[in-house]
Amino acid sequence: MSEHSDNERIADLGFARVDHDREARNGVPEVIFGEGKRAEQISAIVTCLRERHRRALVTRLDAERAECVLRDHPGGTYDPASRLLRWGEAPGRLPGRVAVICAGTSDLPVAEEAAQTLEWLGVEVARLSDVGVAGLDRLLAHRTAIARADVLIVVAGMEGALPSVVTGLVRNPVIAVPTSVGYGASLQGVTALLGMLSACATGMSVVNIDNGFGAAWQAASILGLVAHGVNPAPVDFSHNADAPGS
Amino acid sequence: MSEHSDNERIADLGFARVDHDREARNGVPEVIFGEGKRAEQISAIVTCLRERHRRALVTRLDAERAECVLRDHPGGTYDPASRLLRWGEAPGRLPGRVAVICAGTSDLPVAEEAAQTLEWLGVEVARLSDVGVAGLDRLLAHRTAIARADVLIVVAGMEGALPSVVTGLVRNPVIAVPTSVGYGASLQGVTALLGMLSACATGMSVVNIDNGFGAAWQAASILGLVAHGVNPAPVDFSHNADAPGS
Amino acid sequence: MSEHSDNERIADLGFARVDHDREARNGVPEVIFGEGKRAEQISAIVTCLRERHRRALVTRLDAERAECVLRDHPGGTYDPASRLLRWGEAPGRLPGRVAVICAGTSDLPVAEEAAQTLEWLGVEVARLSDVGVAGLDRLLAHRTAIARADVLIVVAGMEGALPSVVTGLVRNPVIAVPTSVGYGASLQGVTALLGMLSACATGMSVVNIDNGFGAAWQAASILGLVAHGVNPAPVDFSHNADAPGS
Amino acid sequence: MSEHSDNERIADLGFARVDHDREARNGVPEVIFGEGKRAEQISAIVTCLRERHRRALVTRLDAERAECVLRDHPGGTYDPASRLLRWGEAPGRLPGRVAVICAGTSDLPVAEEAAQTLEWLGVEVARLSDVGVAGLDRLLAHRTAIARADVLIVVAGMEGALPSVVTGLVRNPVIAVPTSVGYGASLQGVTALLGMLSACATGMSVVNIDNGFGAAWQAASILGLVAHGVNPAPVDFSHNADAPGS
Amino acid sequence: MSEHSDNERIADLGFARVDHDREARNGVPEVIFGEGKRAEQISAIVTCLRERHRRALVTRLDAERAECVLRDHPGGTYDPASRLLRWGEAPGRLPGRVAVICAGTSDLPVAEEAAQTLEWLGVEVARLSDVGVAGLDRLLAHRTAIARADVLIVVAGMEGALPSVVTGLVRNPVIAVPTSVGYGASLQGVTALLGMLSACATGMSVVNIDNGFGAAWQAASILGLVAHGVNPAPVDFSHNADAPGS
Amino acid sequence: MSEHSDNERIADLGFARVDHDREARNGVPEVIFGEGKRAEQISAIVTCLRERHRRALVTRLDAERAECVLRDHPGGTYDPASRLLRWGEAPGRLPGRVAVICAGTSDLPVAEEAAQTLEWLGVEVARLSDVGVAGLDRLLAHRTAIARADVLIVVAGMEGALPSVVTGLVRNPVIAVPTSVGYGASLQGVTALLGMLSACATGMSVVNIDNGFGAAWQAASILGLVAHGVNPAPVDFSHNADAPGS
Amino acid sequence: MSEHSDNERIADLGFARVDHDREARNGVPEVIFGEGKRAEQISAIVTCLRERHRRALVTRLDAERAECVLRDHPGGTYDPASRLLRWGEAPGRLPGRVAVICAGTSDLPVAEEAAQTLEWLGVEVARLSDVGVAGLDRLLAHRTAIARADVLIVVAGMEGALPSVVTGLVRNPVIAVPTSVGYGASLQGVTALLGMLSACATGMSVVNIDNGFGAAWQAASILGLVAHGVNPAPVDFSHNADAPGS
Amino acid sequence: MSEHSDNERIADLGFARVDHDREARNGVPEVIFGEGKRAEQISAIVTCLRERHRRALVTRLDAERAECVLRDHPGGTYDPASRLLRWGEAPGRLPGRVAVICAGTSDLPVAEEAAQTLEWLGVEVARLSDVGVAGLDRLLAHRTAIARADVLIVVAGMEGALPSVVTGLVRNPVIAVPTSVGYGASLQGVTALLGMLSACATGMSVVNIDNGFGAAWQAASILGLVAHGVNPAPVDFSHNADAPGS
Repeated sequence: MSEHSDNERIADLGFARVDHDREARNGVPEVIFGEGKRAEQISAIVTCLRERHRRALVTRLDAERAECVLRDHPGGTYDPASRLLRWGEAPGRLPGRVAVICAGTSDLPVAEEAAQTLEWLGVEVARLSDVGVAGLDRLLAHRTAIARADVLIVVAGMEGALPSVVTGLVRNPVIAVPTSVGYGASLQGVTALLGMLSACATGMSVVNIDNGFGAAWQAASILGLVAHGVNPAPVDFSHNADAPGS
Repeated sequence: MSEHSDNERIADLGFARVDHDREARNGVPEVIFGEGKRAEQISAIVTCLRERHRRALVTRLDAERAECVLRDHPGGTYDPASRLLRWGEAPGRLPGRVAVICAGTSDLPVAEEAAQTLEWLGVEVARLSDVGVAGLDRLLAHRTAIARADVLIVVAGMEGALPSVVTGLVRNPVIAVPTSVGYGASLQGVTALLGMLSACATGMSVVNIDNGFGAAWQAASILGLVAHGVNPAPVDFSHNADAPGS
Repeated sequence: MSEHSDNERIADLGFARVDHDREARNGVPEVIFGEGKRAEQISAIVTCLRERHRRALVTRLDAERAECVLRDHPGGTYDPASRLLRWGEAPGRLPGRVAVICAGTSDLPVAEEAAQTLEWLGVEVARLSDVGVAGLDRLLAHRTAIARADVLIVVAGMEGALPSVVTGLVRNPVIAVPTSVGYGASLQGVTALLGMLSACATGMSVVNIDNGFGAAWQAASILGLVAHGVNPAPVDFSHNADAPGS
Repeated sequence: MSEHSDNERIADLGFARVDHDREARNGVPEVIFGEGKRAEQISAIVTCLRERHRRALVTRLDAERAECVLRDHPGGTYDPASRLLRWGEAPGRLPGRVAVICAGTSDLPVAEEAAQTLEWLGVEVARLSDVGVAGLDRLLAHRTAIARADVLIVVAGMEGALPSVVTGLVRNPVIAVPTSVGYGASLQGVTALLGMLSACATGMSVVNIDNGFGAAWQAASILGLVAHGVNPAPVDFSHNADAPGS
Repeated sequence: MSEHSDNERIADLGFARVDHDREARNGVPEVIFGEGKRAEQISAIVTCLRERHRRALVTRLDAERAECVLRDHPGGTYDPASRLLRWGEAPGRLPGRVAVICAGTSDLPVAEEAAQTLEWLGVEVARLSDVGVAGLDRLLAHRTAIARADVLIVVAGMEGALPSVVTGLVRNPVIAVPTSVGYGASLQGVTALLGMLSACATGMSVVNIDNGFGAAWQAASILGLVAHGVNPAPVDFSHNADAPGS
Repeated sequence: MSEHSDNERIADLGFARVDHDREARNGVPEVIFGEGKRAEQISAIVTCLRERHRRALVTRLDAERAECVLRDHPGGTYDPASRLLRWGEAPGRLPGRVAVICAGTSDLPVAEEAAQTLEWLGVEVARLSDVGVAGLDRLLAHRTAIARADVLIVVAGMEGALPSVVTGLVRNPVIAVPTSVGYGASLQGVTALLGMLSACATGMSVVNIDNGFGAAWQAASILGLVAHGVNPAPVDFSHNADAPGS
Repeated sequence: MSEHSDNERIADLGFARVDHDREARNGVPEVIFGEGKRAEQISAIVTCLRERHRRALVTRLDAERAECVLRDHPGGTYDPASRLLRWGEAPGRLPGRVAVICAGTSDLPVAEEAAQTLEWLGVEVARLSDVGVAGLDRLLAHRTAIARADVLIVVAGMEGALPSVVTGLVRNPVIAVPTSVGYGASLQGVTALLGMLSACATGMSVVNIDNGFGAAWQAASILGLVAHGVNPAPVDFSHNADAPGS
Repeated sequence: MSEHSDNERIADLGFARVDHDREARNGVPEVIFGEGKRAEQISAIVTCLRERHRRALVTRLDAERAECVLRDHPGGTYDPASRLLRWGEAPGRLPGRVAVICAGTSDLPVAEEAAQTLEWLGVEVARLSDVGVAGLDRLLAHRTAIARADVLIVVAGMEGALPSVVTGLVRNPVIAVPTSVGYGASLQGVTALLGMLSACATGMSVVNIDNGFGAAWQAASILGLVAHGVNPAPVDFSHNADAPGS
């Protein structure tokens, strides 16, 4: 179905352009954002990705379309909670461990999107659930273990206070994920999002509401940097080395 | 200046109607909201209140107008941080103690508005400052004392997470006060406000942004209930006892 | 299913951590927020709570999941209006009476969430319904009875004006509950919420939109303070008594 | 300065087009919206209006520009509270009385914009101030007089609850004016505006925040209808009587 | 079902309080807001209203509940477009004519809510539809007839520009009704609402989004004033004639 | 000061990178957005642009900084109303005429930003001011001339209705510019912006609030297309002609 | 069904007024906005349009109503992706080519609404899909072809960055279309919309969220101007040539 | 002034509690958020920090208060652009280089806050300015150098598109900083913030508007992880090792 040779860096499927170069550039093949795509479109992109990279990941996919895609690509695994559909796995393992910590039971689907994306990317995950700030002892019971994680993904809805608290307990980077859990003044996650961005704790950054996938990706990117080490060459912006005319 | 006899329940100053009955009804005389009123208007209302009640409180008053009013009413005390101007004090003391806890040094003006209003209302105050959730040990160092407070007013800007955490540590009522401290995503206090309202902690309620005064008032009203005890008579809504036609 | 000994203060169910200590700390066992949890998750938490505390309360639960949970825990009572599911009752009664006043017939589900939560917490409730401010005589007919209530929960949607009016009539604490009743400019309850927070009446505080449960909890916490009396010991924040290193 | 003959219906000043026909069409000459116009622009329009109509009104004008304009047009009256500048008066009086009722002393400037505009339009005004809903007896003391007003303009900031309450007491039309008085959750008058629009009381409509002028205009337009009586001819939309091609 | 004697001014149905006095006070019996009420609740209120007033009106009622209510009260008329259910009619006719003008075919349901409410209130209606400002000649074709209407209700969604244009063409009062018609930047009618409130045209006021009923009510209240004439007695707020203590 | 040779396509000033290639690519040299830049930064960029292109334009510049820049670059023209500072002019004239139409006198600064930018770009402008929709005859008086314009820029604040009306009268492209003129519900221009985007009129598009410059630029770009004619070669996206690897 | 003679310029269907004059005025017959209209209403308008103009276009029409309308008007083409239903085609072709460029596969329905509307209007379209800015090489591979397009419509959801990037690459006019694709912080397209309006790129304008139709219309209007050439006569606003009284 | 012994972990200044333990816990001493604090408060905290840690950093400090603080603490460096005031420097250097890339000259203050914070934290910085997406070649000229940076901080206002584009070019972590640069639809940086959160590019996270400091901190925390390496011990959340009761 896809009209591209093995050498092409960008495969043109008409409705989609699969960027095969991304693995070289970003270290991981392109991932398919499932929302708003029809099952047959997803199937075609999966075909294209699996041919070249042996693995594929689809996010935010409901069960009905997952079933359709799995009919074309039977070897995959679909998890209805996280809405992830995946084939294959990372060729190697990244060093370290990411703690995926979530505030409430209702935040679990987003936490699982993060955790399972990390696993697909070859990262070890430690899960800690239902440790919201209203019952602080549940969290403090694990204070030592928390401080030991190399990267932390903290998932919370409602007022979204957990990442501030966790960030104050650790020195390693924290990625905060607001969720749409809550009602009324929680405004479908906007309140948690704004709260995390306004947090007085330093050393954390934030991704979109319910975006466990994005948090996982950045955590893996941090561990990738640890794995490869920093670039020995200096970064020089003083002249336009890549300028088309140069 | 005010045209009213001592017997009038509502004094009509033209631009304002002073509700002398409020002390009977609410236990405390009317308080003057200083914003948007001219100094001479405030002076006239203060005259009217002091004649009848011997004490007066003006909130949200800038230093310039405070100086004008103090020229007419020299015995008062003005605090530029809390922007409160007051004369006299409560005839008696209420039982118990209110803890006024604030997250950061920048939240102090609002915390002081609460604390000094409480003092004017005859309530004992214990202050705890700069115990934001990003450095949890500063707060936990006072866990026992916190749990001992009869009512808690918790003041926080930015993400406004402190009230959730405090509420989880105590059984007595917590009143949360969001402040306009912060920038960007804190939206002049709206983020802290929405966060407190969305909090998963149970047993707390919220007042307007920067409204230390309102929180103090409700705390005093709770302690007033403790002082007087519950009403022995049942509350009966089954017939319209007060209906004008009855 | 739950793996915890009787001695554990926090029971770890994997997806949830039940905080058995909360009854000691807050006076009441943990309550289950039903939204976003699957029926089997709720059932497992209920098992855990009933084993230890003999009673349990689930909020914001739709009829379908309630039916599933009731199959595992047959003795409970489900009310489709308030969406509360409960087992057992408070071991003792709290003093006083809470008036639950609501503006319109459409606000009744939220008022009932408050009223039935109070009853489960051992508090006597007096209900007054459909007394919105557009027909003031309906409210004024009960002015004397209203002033007699020890705590007042006032529930209103649309413009949310009722709590201001009620607060002006009483000296005891008022907790305002905005509801999502209304359309257009009422913005799913945000307008009522902001209106209540902006109210000029002093002595009231506000909880989240449709959060009858939270209002009930705080009302009970106030009556609990009346029951136990204020703490005779002073609240001392001057040294770090609880500091881990102390 | 204005280049137009006495016969022109629209006077072209370059930066402005004065619609002399409006008096014929709307019953009153055009009014100058003062915001964003330079003093010399206002002066030129005033010249043009006074030549033709003998009277003029400028709204939302600060004291500094008012002084400049008054230098060119000395006979006018400027009121710094309402920020109105006016010359001349209506040639006749309209029947009836408009009650201008305002919730708090801080709302007075907007109430005065309404009241003085009405007086300029030839309408009798009855003022009632500082009768906010938190002290209901101040309002109810005037219940009979309120019900007697032919049109009511009700001005309120903060939660903006007064118009709902007043509307429930009367049968005549109520025009609600939200003001920007308040802080925090009052969002510069947006909360009062949305609250008034969401009000359950029937028979009232709303104008823009702080728009006392607009409310006055509509009140006068209602009394104008009373003065002239309804049109005896039917309103017929069944054929295109005015179509250019007809 | 309703427990009240014929003499009672407020009938207490438990979940609702029917204000029989409203007809005396406002000239028309209470109207039932259908949203959020169960069919059996509506039926009971209708019983109560029809017993006393011979007529009743329910607004915002979907077809399913309308059918249930009609089973108890067979003589009523239900219109699925406007979602109004009504019995009986006004005992007399009001003078004059209201033009109900709407911008687009999609705005018709709201326009019909206004028009049919007016008819139930005894007011003659002239309808003009699909005359949005993007095709000005459709509107101008009726300019003479528009200017002849005694009151104008102008209904528009999307950018909501029609009321400004119409107001500029007439001297009689205009009531603007924003609708939720549109998509994207129209924000479910909020854009039209804000636009109408910001309009530069003077002499119009605004009601809630999709609130054809409210506009009709105010239009009828204006014509009621024309019918009864202005009050000959002065409105005197100088002393507290109605004060309970007076 | 700028370190670049005549041959460089991008001049690196350290704090700024001047894109000399833009004239080749876009037909006009880069324009300096004045907000947030210090006078000496602007001066340096102007030096760089004038050396190469003989002309320069700075937008959104206050008088104080304009004066500083003019000290370094004396030949320029500064207009305080539009806040434009400019040197030189377009080497040639574009065909056609742009009508710049504005709703109110207060919108003139934005209209002038559009008009003077057009003149700097070599486009003939026809100005029509103060023709807001509330006085439709002022606009209709120029209906024929309006329909004759090749491109129309329509500037309006408050409810922003003018562009819809104008678009309905013409067949040529209309660019709508909302302004921040208004108060209260106009939300600093956001209401006008959303209204224009929601407009039912087809054939218009919208630029940012107060962005007269952007509208002028697009109008010139349309007339540029007329001047050069359409591209005779087909646009072929079927293969990756420019791919770096191709 | 429609009651109008062939000579009428506006056909009155009762619920709709079809503006036959629009083809003369705007060059194209009226288009039917499908949302909120019932199938039989659409059918009647289609009858009316096809009788006079031989072609018709309905936008935003779901499949169910499309089927109903096609039963009455069998010759039409319905595309479920773009939700367009159309009959006939433009009598002639416009010069030039419009590039319709979209950021992601999920944006295709909106891009198709633009592309197929253009085809119905007689414009040649070149489509480029899935070239979002996160994989810049996919876009740059077509840089030469992009610069060759006469008008560009750029469609993007999420952060909506593509139009800025494309505008920087071309000199011809760009029309940006935000889409509702995305979740959380994308706020149903509002974020993309605001981003496009705030873009630093000059030479682009914006239409409503998901409004591919509006973008197509303006693109065609630009090419229409190229086809007809600019108006040779000057645009003169100096006197009121069309004034009714002149 | 500060009452604490050298051994105390938290120094209580009354208005502030300095967390000396933070250096042990987070690797860096506490930083002072300058907004809302008085100069004498800042001075006292600086005293306390410098005594213990030899270095201090104050953020968001205006020049006037900086001067006051420098009078008490003369050795510091104040930069008016970034509003940072600092003493001392990091005892060691972290490995790698952070690229601080900013879209426009007006974004430089925020970029400098990030860059100078990094330098204070002992991190090497490479700056690249004025490479906004509207002139893509300015950015692409440095593509190779960009891909070489170990962590990237990308600063942009207006539509905030630059981080998406940069993220697509690299595999290392990107931290996006929205700025308040822009006007109208940019909503003081909210649009850039929401755009960055909605970005389709994977591998980036976001901090608050204008929060260059927070981005720097997280970048340093990532390089700290590289410096120390991942934790060799597993992270075990399976039992409550730190539970107070354990």
